[in-house]
Amino acid sequence: MIEPLRVGVAGLGTVGASVVRILARQDNALADRGGRPVRVTAVSSRDRTRDRGLDLSRYAWIDDPVALARSPEVDCVVELIGGSEGAARATVEAAIAAGKHVVTANKALLAKHGLALARAAEAQGTALCFEAAAAGGIPVIKTLREALHGNAVRRVYGILNGTCNYILTRMEQEGLSFAECLKDAQRLGYAEADPTFDVEGFDTAHKLAILTSLAFGVEIDADAIYVEGISKISTLDLRMADELGYRIKLLGVAERTKTGIEQRVHPTMVPKSSSIAQVTGVTNAVTIDADAVRELTLIGPGAGGEATASAVIGDIGDIASGAVRPPFGRPVARLERAQRAPMQRHEGGYYIRLTVPDRPGVAAGVATHMAAQDISIESILQKRSELAATKDPHGKSGAPVPLVLVTYAAEEAAIRAALDKIAADGLISEPPQVIRIERE
Amino acid sequence: MIEPLRVGVAGLGTVGASVVRILARQDNALADRGGRPVRVTAVSSRDRTRDRGLDLSRYAWIDDPVALARSPEVDCVVELIGGSEGAARATVEAAIAAGKHVVTANKALLAKHGLALARAAEAQGTALCFEAAAAGGIPVIKTLREALHGNAVRRVYGILNGTCNYILTRMEQEGLSFAECLKDAQRLGYAEADPTFDVEGFDTAHKLAILTSLAFGVEIDADAIYVEGISKISTLDLRMADELGYRIKLLGVAERTKTGIEQRVHPTMVPKSSSIAQVTGVTNAVTIDADAVRELTLIGPGAGGEATASAVIGDIGDIASGAVRPPFGRPVARLERAQRAPMQRHEGGYYIRLTVPDRPGVAAGVATHMAAQDISIESILQKRSELAATKDPHGKSGAPVPLVLVTYAAEEAAIRAALDKIAADGLISEPPQVIRIERE
Repeated sequence: MIEPLRVGVAGLGTVGASVVRILARQDNALADRGGRPVRVTAVSSRDRTRDRGLDLSRYAWIDDPVALARSPEVDCVVELIGGSEGAARATVEAAIAAGKHVVTANKALLAKHGLALARAAEAQGTALCFEAAAAGGIPVIKTLREALHGNAVRRVYGILNGTCNYILTRMEQEGLSFAECLKDAQRLGYAEADPTFDVEGFDTAHKLAILTSLAFGVEIDADAIYVEGISKISTLDLRMADELGYRIKLLGVAERTKTGIEQRVHPTMVPKSSSIAQVTGVTNAVTIDADAVRELTLIGPGAGGEATASAVIGDIGDIASGAVRPPFGRPVARLERAQRAPMQRHEGGYYIRLTVPDRPGVAAGVATHMAAQDISIESILQKRSELAATKDPHGKSGAPVPLVLVTYAAEEAAIRAALDKIAADGLISEPPQVIRIERE
Repeated sequence: MIEPLRVGVAGLGTVGASVVRILARQDNALADRGGRPVRVTAVSSRDRTRDRGLDLSRYAWIDDPVALARSPEVDCVVELIGGSEGAARATVEAAIAAGKHVVTANKALLAKHGLALARAAEAQGTALCFEAAAAGGIPVIKTLREALHGNAVRRVYGILNGTCNYILTRMEQEGLSFAECLKDAQRLGYAEADPTFDVEGFDTAHKLAILTSLAFGVEIDADAIYVEGISKISTLDLRMADELGYRIKLLGVAERTKTGIEQRVHPTMVPKSSSIAQVTGVTNAVTIDADAVRELTLIGPGAGGEATASAVIGDIGDIASGAVRPPFGRPVARLERAQRAPMQRHEGGYYIRLTVPDRPGVAAGVATHMAAQDISIESILQKRSELAATKDPHGKSGAPVPLVLVTYAAEEAAIRAALDKIAADGLISEPPQVIRIERE
């Protein structure tokens, strides 16, 4: 008789409750697959009385998650408390110090303390697994850590936040404003009461930091990430994108460039024909671009209790079958310190929407400043409304109209310099809208 | 100093040569990631003189792959010879018997002898890995085996043959015939001189047999697979599909139904909006539909030297890091013998294209026979050519015209019975075209 793996679950929100439920449901299959039974022995949560539709009487209830982490009845601690400090951090640290395996879905904790935790786990010979910390139910951590040994990764990018993708999809498909879609997302439970963390890109950045480390074999460096959210995207941008053959997605992108590892989170135009452009609603997707395999795309649920629990239980299964891999794919000492590629040196296509006065010479002035920075323009779209055209048939009123430029590959610094000159010349009446283009 | 994992490569075609090349190129990264160096020590191939663009002088050349499999200088045998019998089978059997780990890309061998080989590997405590045997560079074997412990899989389906997808994509996009596209595929090296194995669905069936075993925890049962190829698909069908909102893909589908495990390979209509419909050219894709994670889709290269080598090296990396998993996800004794769901009991939507004489009452006759079998029709498309309409304005000429029906979910047996009656009544002038519909 093989001893079961005894699991303690700290945090019984939607994901934690799903983990407990599924572990009971998949009891026999787990024993068959992992080569040893898996049993929840202890649980911990702030609120003992809440009805979770679960019979918790079978498990020891331990109020303090740190005590659960140290319990002799637990071999594997599942941390689902959340947050980069406080109880979550204390629980994970205590578990590792006590020689327990750890499974966590906590991207904020990993983005901030991942390296130190990996070092501690390595010293103790325990597993630190976090499949659920990036892209929910999609096995992208396992793929990057274990399936691509033969590859040098060039780029990894994806839709890593379901809230933002839901909002952008509805804005695009229904022509609604950001504010309206956000309100709906909050009503449906897809967005928090304070949505900043999701819509301003910070959640995506935490996840990207983890993927970057695994993809390139470098130390986690969340502070190096350039972050821009979706709150300034307008329905006009989505319509223009559509006309130009693109969709707008909030992407996290990590790329090895000639200046180092570039990490950035921002609204991005992707060609309509790309796999990632087809990903709508709360679904997530990650594309890995590597030398041997070329391009892999993984699409699936980025959130939700059962889907996230699926990733957590995949990790538990790995631990049950005895696999203890270095958390970030190689021993901490073998992770390089990444050379940060500055955003000013980013090279790519740009969509630039200017609000210009409707009078002769403006487009020429804009074009001259772009040319002075050696920026080549792929297309220009200037659309006056029909009303404006009727009122002012010669286009001399000076009323503000949108002027959209799409550039060939250019450097961020050149784009910024050109836009500064354009603003200094009084050619625009509002701050420019700049959206980077990601081509396949 | 940790001893390196010594690899012997049997078979130096495109994939084998890529494996040797990448193992040299990724030398340091592999040692970092697997925790131990990986070295090719011996190679074997039929033709020693061929120029592969590789310096093979660093490796022992062993003419007989079985001798390579038994060599004391080899810990891990990579079998890339191909075929379900002969040298490939002998090599793998000899390697396992000698206690070596085995990595193979050989779907034909696994579809036929996978269970016996897994049993032998289990008895020897050696690894038998085959990520490259299904969907090329896509890590679908690892995903099914290791990432979905928390899930009961309902269905796994995918585009598993790049040749067929290339042909169907070109037929659809350029309106070319099957024969023309096949010729091009052969010219470009995407199809063999004898294309039967690919275009008639047998290659897809071998891959599906492996996925079915992993997805449902059942013994491999390739003989149970219903197989139908793409050679009878016409450009008319592709146009009709387009009009109805579908694309046609050759899918392998395995599904747990109330009558057992259904395994089938056939041309399939998939909704244009589905992830799988976007997959064009030689790219492969697999969708896994499971209770906890809901839906995962993995898209990537299904063939090609480096992409397939990427999967092979992923397996080698697993072996280097000491992971020995049961080949089909659980010990052979824990694999169930699957109840075969007969194709006659298959339930789904159907596209049926009949060639009927252009005269009154024919559509009514067809509809009556469908109704008698309790089949509900979702849509009917009858398109006379403009020429026919001009020549015969009252539609009484009896000239053959296509009549397309799309059904709601119906049983295969009922469809077949209705079509038999329709034929017996002389309502059709050619055998009917039947294409199953796969909805998300």
